[in-house]
Amino acid sequence: MAERALEIRSESHTYPIYIAAGLRHQTADILKGLGKSTFSAVLIVTDETVGPLYAEEVAASFADEQPLYICTLAAGEQSKSMETYYELMTFALNCHLDRNSVIVALGGGVVGDAAGFAAATYMRGIDYVQMPTTLLAHDSSVGGKTGINHPLGKNLIGAFHPPAAVIYDTETLYTLPEKEWRSGLAEVIKHGWIQDPELLKVIKDQWLDLSAVPVDVLNDTIRQSIQVKAEIVQLDEREAGIRAFLNFGHTLGHAIEAEAGYGTLTHGEAVAIGMDFAMKLSGKVLGSSLDSEAYNEEMIRLGYDLTIPASCEPETLLAHMKRDKKAAEQKVRFVLLQEAGVPLVRPVEDDTILDLLKEEMTI
Amino acid sequence: MAERALEIRSESHTYPIYIAAGLRHQTADILKGLGKSTFSAVLIVTDETVGPLYAEEVAASFADEQPLYICTLAAGEQSKSMETYYELMTFALNCHLDRNSVIVALGGGVVGDAAGFAAATYMRGIDYVQMPTTLLAHDSSVGGKTGINHPLGKNLIGAFHPPAAVIYDTETLYTLPEKEWRSGLAEVIKHGWIQDPELLKVIKDQWLDLSAVPVDVLNDTIRQSIQVKAEIVQLDEREAGIRAFLNFGHTLGHAIEAEAGYGTLTHGEAVAIGMDFAMKLSGKVLGSSLDSEAYNEEMIRLGYDLTIPASCEPETLLAHMKRDKKAAEQKVRFVLLQEAGVPLVRPVEDDTILDLLKEEMTI
Repeated sequence: MAERALEIRSESHTYPIYIAAGLRHQTADILKGLGKSTFSAVLIVTDETVGPLYAEEVAASFADEQPLYICTLAAGEQSKSMETYYELMTFALNCHLDRNSVIVALGGGVVGDAAGFAAATYMRGIDYVQMPTTLLAHDSSVGGKTGINHPLGKNLIGAFHPPAAVIYDTETLYTLPEKEWRSGLAEVIKHGWIQDPELLKVIKDQWLDLSAVPVDVLNDTIRQSIQVKAEIVQLDEREAGIRAFLNFGHTLGHAIEAEAGYGTLTHGEAVAIGMDFAMKLSGKVLGSSLDSEAYNEEMIRLGYDLTIPASCEPETLLAHMKRDKKAAEQKVRFVLLQEAGVPLVRPVEDDTILDLLKEEMTI
Repeated sequence: MAERALEIRSESHTYPIYIAAGLRHQTADILKGLGKSTFSAVLIVTDETVGPLYAEEVAASFADEQPLYICTLAAGEQSKSMETYYELMTFALNCHLDRNSVIVALGGGVVGDAAGFAAATYMRGIDYVQMPTTLLAHDSSVGGKTGINHPLGKNLIGAFHPPAAVIYDTETLYTLPEKEWRSGLAEVIKHGWIQDPELLKVIKDQWLDLSAVPVDVLNDTIRQSIQVKAEIVQLDEREAGIRAFLNFGHTLGHAIEAEAGYGTLTHGEAVAIGMDFAMKLSGKVLGSSLDSEAYNEEMIRLGYDLTIPASCEPETLLAHMKRDKKAAEQKVRFVLLQEAGVPLVRPVEDDTILDLLKEEMTI
């Protein structure tokens, strides 16, 4: 029987996280071990990239005790649309899922978010299990955020609905392209900077070859990184306070992602640039003495490019960061670092942001 | 300042229920008294029947402290569609509602369910307030059930999302047609039979003229009826057990509503027939000695017709009641009464149901 790596406390229940190579073959056993009565039906939601690789293996772990269905979404962000959501609900209804059924979200963040939102709203909420198959999804699979996009913005429609379990088969990560490893690792590095500098040392010393990291190191790193996320989320599930620290690097990161065009940079690549910027801003605003050069060196070793894309204008990036504010005069709130492991949130003057952006972009 | 008639404990928070004539003029004050910081914006969701009567009065209770918007849905069940839900979300986004905004659901059950589901899923959940304007909605406005319909069935898409408050301006009920009073009163009578026989006495003695009941009697009756619902829901928010008692009269009631065609009978009129049937079934299955004749007499005094519509076939009604069951061999589970105030759930043989249906329909 698989061992629980972590347990996460949410508002409504506590759920286990399993992390190990090959767990997909034990999916049914792990579900049985959750202490609920047998699920009446199982619906695996996956996408066209992950499905052909692993869906049948997950399905094969189940005996014929209950009906099992597989719903394969198109790969990519487009599956977080209202149309796909509606199709997914119709699919689930046609499979006669009831309140005792379970949805298994097998894939990256898009599958997790979309399948999670379907589970959150199917007959007012049924169980679902996250089976992340990317490194980036170690972040999104924990914390209970589910949702889809609206043409007016990402994740605007959604619900908090923590999973019944997270089953992380780390073997599935080794089919990822290096770019995707890098996207996920940026969130690990973020967790290191805001709370657990030890993680940064692990990456420096043990992540020598990005996409060929030994599986033991991978398992440990994921566990430590989820631990950081879990501690913060447990204290602040609904984002009233310290959960904001998780946005370190994301204020500028999101703006760059949007302005450069989604897909040009991965999420993590944009966040890596955002963290670099936030560290320099921490120096200017708080007088923090972070070793920004060492950060740069380490990130370059891992293959990140920390240059803000030339297609982005400083004024446009600032406007994007201010877009969600209620009043134009309101300042952008940045997550800054007093030192490694000590984050805080500060409103920053427009001019300070603009000056640093211009400085960075003319180097 | 308005007085709290009741407080309801939900999984996530406790919320007050205000019941009095004229409360719509105090909406803003009541919202302020909820102890949250000022809401950043207010969106009143209503329908084409209720909106022209009361929306401006509710709006007028607010000073210009925050932006206020009104979204008017078409009247009737059609507004619980996916299309209307999407339009409502787009409307809210265009009004720049944020996580500190509030939705005010002003109307009957359809408005409450649809606006509540929008609030449940807007940016992963924002506050909303129920302002029921029908007697029937005294039932649906408490308990946190929100949702919309799918072509494959009613309320299949939804969430549990308890309101921040229920503001019941009982003055608004007096514009209802008598048929609607009757629809709501059936749920009051149901609460009487399953838990509080005293309520039945109140109706018999004090509800002499259905739609012209004195407002004091109306307020007290609503408070008592909500009290029953609240006690059950507080013990079983997510319908694992005793919440099923609230389905008394609804097993056959729902089947009649669907088979006779929605809109032919009101919900409450169908439930009244269903309660009559469940009482007779209680006699057959449990040997209960309920005074079914007195029930009939009282219901006829109130203008109900307890005849199962001739357009319904016994076999079709049975098939409808069995439709949601996982296996065809599974029995229909009825809420029966041991005596007034003592409900229990029992699986009943198909033949027993069919025989009684035929008996009832040939009288």
